[in-house]
Amino acid sequence: MINRQFTLAARPQGLVKRSDFAYAETPLPEPKDGELLVKTLYLSLDPAMRGWMNEGKSYIRPVAIGEVMRAGTLGEVLVSKAPGFKAGDHVVGNWGVQDYAALPPEGLSKVDAGLAPLPKYLGVLGMPGLTAYFGLLEIGQPKPGEVVVVSGAAGAVGQVVGQIAKLKGCTVIGIAGGADKCAYVVRDLGFDACIDYKSQDVKKGLRELAPKGVDVYFDNVGGDILDAVLTQIRMKARIVICGAISQYNNTTPVKGPSNYMSLLVNRARMEGMVVFDWAPRYGEAIQAMGAWLAEGRLKSREDIVQGLETFPETLNKLFSGENFGKLLIQV
Amino acid sequence: MINRQFTLAARPQGLVKRSDFAYAETPLPEPKDGELLVKTLYLSLDPAMRGWMNEGKSYIRPVAIGEVMRAGTLGEVLVSKAPGFKAGDHVVGNWGVQDYAALPPEGLSKVDAGLAPLPKYLGVLGMPGLTAYFGLLEIGQPKPGEVVVVSGAAGAVGQVVGQIAKLKGCTVIGIAGGADKCAYVVRDLGFDACIDYKSQDVKKGLRELAPKGVDVYFDNVGGDILDAVLTQIRMKARIVICGAISQYNNTTPVKGPSNYMSLLVNRARMEGMVVFDWAPRYGEAIQAMGAWLAEGRLKSREDIVQGLETFPETLNKLFSGENFGKLLIQV
Repeated sequence: MINRQFTLAARPQGLVKRSDFAYAETPLPEPKDGELLVKTLYLSLDPAMRGWMNEGKSYIRPVAIGEVMRAGTLGEVLVSKAPGFKAGDHVVGNWGVQDYAALPPEGLSKVDAGLAPLPKYLGVLGMPGLTAYFGLLEIGQPKPGEVVVVSGAAGAVGQVVGQIAKLKGCTVIGIAGGADKCAYVVRDLGFDACIDYKSQDVKKGLRELAPKGVDVYFDNVGGDILDAVLTQIRMKARIVICGAISQYNNTTPVKGPSNYMSLLVNRARMEGMVVFDWAPRYGEAIQAMGAWLAEGRLKSREDIVQGLETFPETLNKLFSGENFGKLLIQV
Repeated sequence: MINRQFTLAARPQGLVKRSDFAYAETPLPEPKDGELLVKTLYLSLDPAMRGWMNEGKSYIRPVAIGEVMRAGTLGEVLVSKAPGFKAGDHVVGNWGVQDYAALPPEGLSKVDAGLAPLPKYLGVLGMPGLTAYFGLLEIGQPKPGEVVVVSGAAGAVGQVVGQIAKLKGCTVIGIAGGADKCAYVVRDLGFDACIDYKSQDVKKGLRELAPKGVDVYFDNVGGDILDAVLTQIRMKARIVICGAISQYNNTTPVKGPSNYMSLLVNRARMEGMVVFDWAPRYGEAIQAMGAWLAEGRLKSREDIVQGLETFPETLNKLFSGENFGKLLIQV
């Protein structure tokens, strides 16, 4: 048995290329005492991964050249030499883009394949869902009756943000790329409306859909869409900065929000969030979202691509907007 | 007796020109019953005035073409036909760039020339001081021991922000243009340090002066300085958006902060403020600042230009950075 791995070979310029990674076939690792041997079943593909490939200070250290590319992972325990885990257990972790890993159990969580399909644990019940939950409720602080706008609305985080906002009694407007994604969030997920930024003017759309303005904007994309929403915010609006996918592959400087002075005019605030800060409260969120899932009040869609070998090209689906729902690789 | 007035003649492009105003000599206005006749002693010149000359939605309606240019004013009551006011009273208001006005007393406040020199009532005890007080304490929320940075440090708002932050036990770093202004805020006002953005690299200066990062940034200027400070903020930093004087005369789009994703990396927030929101609490602030003034713990400097006729050119001193302290015209 071999362990296929993608390691980081170069810091990408712009979109990721296959040559930014080195593909290697290594021997199956051997777990030491206190470690587990896990087999990867699913790899999580997330916009944040592009940032981890850059040099420089961020909220997490960059992946080093030569290191296995960091990724959220879900797998099965093959061998356990650690207390509390046994062969056959399913665990989520961050052991990266490889078939197998031998590692200590710190940072792994067991998940129950009987309660929800495994891919959900990397999506709505994983980091994207937790990001949506804490970003919306704690940073956005929506109140019933308010207007919540979310970009990347059909993405892993956006679809959960909008549904939680609906559960909390808000009017929800999504922004997504393409008629299919817009139809999905309105018809299947119950958003009140969706603006297709590829064919519609976002500013004009918001002016029509939210004539009194936007109370909470959950931003996954940055760039021109952030600027358009800034022109339509209401007094005391809250903008949650969760990501800026439109800017991650820039080879020129990031486009800052030209309309940021709307924060002054509207006494509004823009605040960044990183889900890891909420780790002590993950349990609360998973319990709430698990219950909503079970009741059918929270839905999610996964976009599952087959084969670890597709990793570099699959990652770019995030940036071309081709993915539809939470993007995963089934290994 | 004539009433000299500057009315708005055109919406300026870039820096204000004399031809953007019409100068008129009109008859002395006659106060009706319930009104006062006031004579202007001092005009307040504030960066916000540039914004009031533009068309479009802001936190206050634009000055109309043909209307007397709006300005903060301090004057003496010549004739009172309103209860509670008598000839000889000193009042502050917003009756604009003219020698006299007949107006109802709503929006006027009496000030006591015996407690503080009159110009202070348009500076440290007026809108700039109130902006500093509420913007710093309520939006910035500095805690003792934290690092507070303020741009426009020698300006009407900045000088007060820095001194209040010192009174609250913070380390204070100013950013100002020129060695004189920097020397003033450090030697005369007690700031811990000051970066001269005209001769020093702001980012490098902050890295040296605040190696652990900036907790509160009070931004009066926007542009490149905001971007430089964003690279040096600390976890959970608060950025108070009070103004963006570097951008007010742009004929191209405003430069948005390219480094705004530092808000995410540092879980920081950027929030706008307008002093008018705090009107119900002005009394509390004036009492606190009046006491600090009396005790010599709060100082301020005014830059007083003679003659209402200099108005268009004097206004531009704000944008060229020529003013040093609160800019006023003595009429």
